Amino acid sequence: MKIAFLGLGQMGRAIAVNLIDAGHTVTVWNRSEGRAASLGEAGAIIATTPRDAVEGAETVFTMLADDKAVTSVVNGTDGLLAGLGPDAIHVGMSTVGVGFTDDLAAQHIAMGRTYIAAPVFGRPDAAAAARLFVLAGGDANAIDRCRPLFDVIGQRLFIAGPKPSHASVVKLSGNFMIMAAVEAMAESMALCEANGVARGTFLDVIQNTLFNAPVYRNYGAMLAEERYRPAGFGAPLGLKDMRLVDEAAEVARVAMPSLGVIRNRLRSAIAAHGEDIDWAGIALAAKPAV
Amino acid sequence: MKIAFLGLGQMGRAIAVNLIDAGHTVTVWNRSEGRAASLGEAGAIIATTPRDAVEGAETVFTMLADDKAVTSVVNGTDGLLAGLGPDAIHVGMSTVGVGFTDDLAAQHIAMGRTYIAAPVFGRPDAAAAARLFVLAGGDANAIDRCRPLFDVIGQRLFIAGPKPSHASVVKLSGNFMIMAAVEAMAESMALCEANGVARGTFLDVIQNTLFNAPVYRNYGAMLAEERYRPAGFGAPLGLKDMRLVDEAAEVARVAMPSLGVIRNRLRSAIAAHGEDIDWAGIALAAKPAV
Amino acid sequence: MKIAFLGLGQMGRAIAVNLIDAGHTVTVWNRSEGRAASLGEAGAIIATTPRDAVEGAETVFTMLADDKAVTSVVNGTDGLLAGLGPDAIHVGMSTVGVGFTDDLAAQHIAMGRTYIAAPVFGRPDAAAAARLFVLAGGDANAIDRCRPLFDVIGQRLFIAGPKPSHASVVKLSGNFMIMAAVEAMAESMALCEANGVARGTFLDVIQNTLFNAPVYRNYGAMLAEERYRPAGFGAPLGLKDMRLVDEAAEVARVAMPSLGVIRNRLRSAIAAHGEDIDWAGIALAAKPAV
Amino acid sequence: MKIAFLGLGQMGRAIAVNLIDAGHTVTVWNRSEGRAASLGEAGAIIATTPRDAVEGAETVFTMLADDKAVTSVVNGTDGLLAGLGPDAIHVGMSTVGVGFTDDLAAQHIAMGRTYIAAPVFGRPDAAAAARLFVLAGGDANAIDRCRPLFDVIGQRLFIAGPKPSHASVVKLSGNFMIMAAVEAMAESMALCEANGVARGTFLDVIQNTLFNAPVYRNYGAMLAEERYRPAGFGAPLGLKDMRLVDEAAEVARVAMPSLGVIRNRLRSAIAAHGEDIDWAGIALAAKPAV
Repeated sequence: MKIAFLGLGQMGRAIAVNLIDAGHTVTVWNRSEGRAASLGEAGAIIATTPRDAVEGAETVFTMLADDKAVTSVVNGTDGLLAGLGPDAIHVGMSTVGVGFTDDLAAQHIAMGRTYIAAPVFGRPDAAAAARLFVLAGGDANAIDRCRPLFDVIGQRLFIAGPKPSHASVVKLSGNFMIMAAVEAMAESMALCEANGVARGTFLDVIQNTLFNAPVYRNYGAMLAEERYRPAGFGAPLGLKDMRLVDEAAEVARVAMPSLGVIRNRLRSAIAAHGEDIDWAGIALAAKPAV
Repeated sequence: MKIAFLGLGQMGRAIAVNLIDAGHTVTVWNRSEGRAASLGEAGAIIATTPRDAVEGAETVFTMLADDKAVTSVVNGTDGLLAGLGPDAIHVGMSTVGVGFTDDLAAQHIAMGRTYIAAPVFGRPDAAAAARLFVLAGGDANAIDRCRPLFDVIGQRLFIAGPKPSHASVVKLSGNFMIMAAVEAMAESMALCEANGVARGTFLDVIQNTLFNAPVYRNYGAMLAEERYRPAGFGAPLGLKDMRLVDEAAEVARVAMPSLGVIRNRLRSAIAAHGEDIDWAGIALAAKPAV
Repeated sequence: MKIAFLGLGQMGRAIAVNLIDAGHTVTVWNRSEGRAASLGEAGAIIATTPRDAVEGAETVFTMLADDKAVTSVVNGTDGLLAGLGPDAIHVGMSTVGVGFTDDLAAQHIAMGRTYIAAPVFGRPDAAAAARLFVLAGGDANAIDRCRPLFDVIGQRLFIAGPKPSHASVVKLSGNFMIMAAVEAMAESMALCEANGVARGTFLDVIQNTLFNAPVYRNYGAMLAEERYRPAGFGAPLGLKDMRLVDEAAEVARVAMPSLGVIRNRLRSAIAAHGEDIDWAGIALAAKPAV
Repeated sequence: MKIAFLGLGQMGRAIAVNLIDAGHTVTVWNRSEGRAASLGEAGAIIATTPRDAVEGAETVFTMLADDKAVTSVVNGTDGLLAGLGPDAIHVGMSTVGVGFTDDLAAQHIAMGRTYIAAPVFGRPDAAAAARLFVLAGGDANAIDRCRPLFDVIGQRLFIAGPKPSHASVVKLSGNFMIMAAVEAMAESMALCEANGVARGTFLDVIQNTLFNAPVYRNYGAMLAEERYRPAGFGAPLGLKDMRLVDEAAEVARVAMPSLGVIRNRLRSAIAAHGEDIDWAGIALAAKPAV
């Protein structure tokens, strides 16, 4: 299949390589050209604009940092929409806002184009191993057409619903759930520690009993060792995702008090410890200052 | 081994039966006599006071509702401490407060007696199947002496630390973690639902990806089906446990904002829906009123 | 002085009338023309575009609903900036965001124009009585030149600082303080009521002792009588202002947990009782559902 | 009138002196005798036990630190109740719990004695100046009989309701309102400061506009100057009062999310800055760590 892939950060690059390795013809584009060039060696065709990249492609993936990056790639004379064919499908993998996704979908529809959202769960190592969980939202036929590609990049596909933003809201909620789990562990560990029980002891109990899940094992280890640098997923990015959850909750008039706690704790942790900590560093807000 | 077992609620009864079945001589006592009588048929000796029950016993288990029940069973002329032998071990399995446990331990020490705490994770069906997780705190030798009994009633033993209250704080933290997970799911499901994604769809995604743990599966199903009656673990009991966590946090000067959220949501859910809901009914507070 | 006044809602209209009555030449503009026309009878000159309104004016006031309204009035061929003279001062009275104000100020500077912010505290009746409190931020000379006009419309002028956004942050914080006071009263009244003390009794005590301030008297009366319609200041507008506070706090990495509480309670109250309640209706979230 | 006064801390001493100066015969008792002795010079009769102090008294005031102190003074062979006459009135001025007050009242009724609660608003200097606000709860006739004494010690009497605990709940709610106001100011000042507006500037605006009340002026000054030592009212005492509010809210199933915020912030402030800060030091939790 002819594929275009826009956005070659750690995640995008790993996914694109898997698509190339599966035998697809992949044209890539990235804002900073160095990253695209190195993918050329892996077999990708290098494009110099989003428009060039997507012309003739059957499926176009975007994996970009945020709403702003998506907007700048999609629009303009050299933008994605200027080159996207009527039968092509644009698959947005970026974690962006619910309202933003609705607007993006509407923009595609207005131009007779097809947009589906397919954010993923998994870190770069899972992307490299094709072990991502893919969460698709949008037209069922379009999702079906992309299914073989999702199989190449992930271990399982979930269908969130008929609107692209259905995938956005589930993905954002999932990220909120991660932060909520980390905050709960952080509060518990602070309480245990203050009562003479080591963090590791607490973690050993919960991860081997009721909370025997990847989130608790992975983040639990970071919290037990109090190791928040270098960041796997930066606290400011986490804060941004939590803001997107808040934005959706505001529009829907949904009270999310745990979310409120998380956003404040993340801010406190960043203010006290710097912008370069991992989002698990939210736990630093639960430590009494010395 | 000669064992006494005081407190024959759903949990206590199931544990006592397993001890009897393992060939131990078990004397039982319960405040309301009917429950003790029925255990007589299973092979237990029935005592009429805590004191009678524990005289001559090597190990004494208590599994009672709360601090108050423990206090009334332990003290007085007919109480546990009046009969407990100098070489016997009192194993407290009730979920009680951290400060209360410290006081109880001190009371035993002052009388030359041994107290260890061994609260458990697991519902009555896990108790019946001898699949409990046992969380022991206290003197290491005393815990070791009880290990064969813990093996009979549970699937795994964790050592929280050298003080009985070390087990209390871990157990209470674990219950807090459960409520935090339920609240996070409840907020997420409310957000998803408001955006057109069914609760079951959200649950399917999270329990098969990052949150593949018993807590999310079991409580997630209750939340997806919005079924909070009959209560497996009543909301007022949950509220009581969360108060015990708060009490320990207050003494230790530990801020636990997620705990604050949980306590308020539980109150709101109870106020609006009644004292008879399950503690997972905290999710009702996340539903917009109609 | 030659004045232009853009935005003739309840507040803007009352202020504009006071400027006219003080003998100034006032040209007005409003998006919906009916409101401007009626001010013509009061002595105003009616303009058909923001640009027309501001040409030749020494001082230009804008009193608009939100960031979006300001943006649409300021920009474009018929916009305010297309007509604003180099010696004129644009005085923004709208309650808008901190970052937005910084951007607006920068846009003026880039064009060699002067922008100061002057949001006000006070409801329409205070505006009509020229009893507003004016909160100015920006260049000190520019503020001084406007002082005679501020004296006409308000009872007192406060200088927030040398940047226009200094006034925005103080104004937004003030609105947050109001909501925090209302929420605290609402929680207290719910507690008192549940314990058999009437809302009015509680209010009588606090407003005559430690909280003898307009906010407590005015909002306290609404809470005591549980009268939230018709809205003096609508809950959705309150929610918008609280979002602007949150936005500023996010950028500055400031944790504001009381703000988090307020935003969630406002959402709950709106979800359960409708978009048409007053922002004091936040108190409805503190009432147990029936 | 023959009066007994038990508890001669800063507040009790100032009140007792006013009662003596008004010509009443006042017998005093205090746990540590030195304080009582010094009041002897002011004209008081010194008693050596609570029982001795109250025998023959028409009105008995208690002004003690907490529930525990009240319990120990009231009960026992040498306790208040052993000496309190059938026509005497016990006036409890201490800030104690709602449930505790109900129990205390029931204990008096069971013995055919009369208890009313009369906590006060005001610091020691207000007590010395007889400017306290008195908040009475209990039997209306009993309150009426004490009215001349309340007039001697305070500037105004409020009737909370027919149960002594009605006064407790209003008093505790009032203390909660103070903390809520301080926390709101603290969050606002942190936001203003982070945006370049001095704390004093913010305070100047709010205390001269909408929040022109003693609480904002007094605590606002402490927050603007960031001066939290020596403590006028210690943070641990504030934390205790907030726990009493929480206790009453738990029983009544009332959600008080602002209270949750306050309790956590007070803990954080104490953990980071010490047990000796004023309760206004809650504002320290709003300061980013350095």
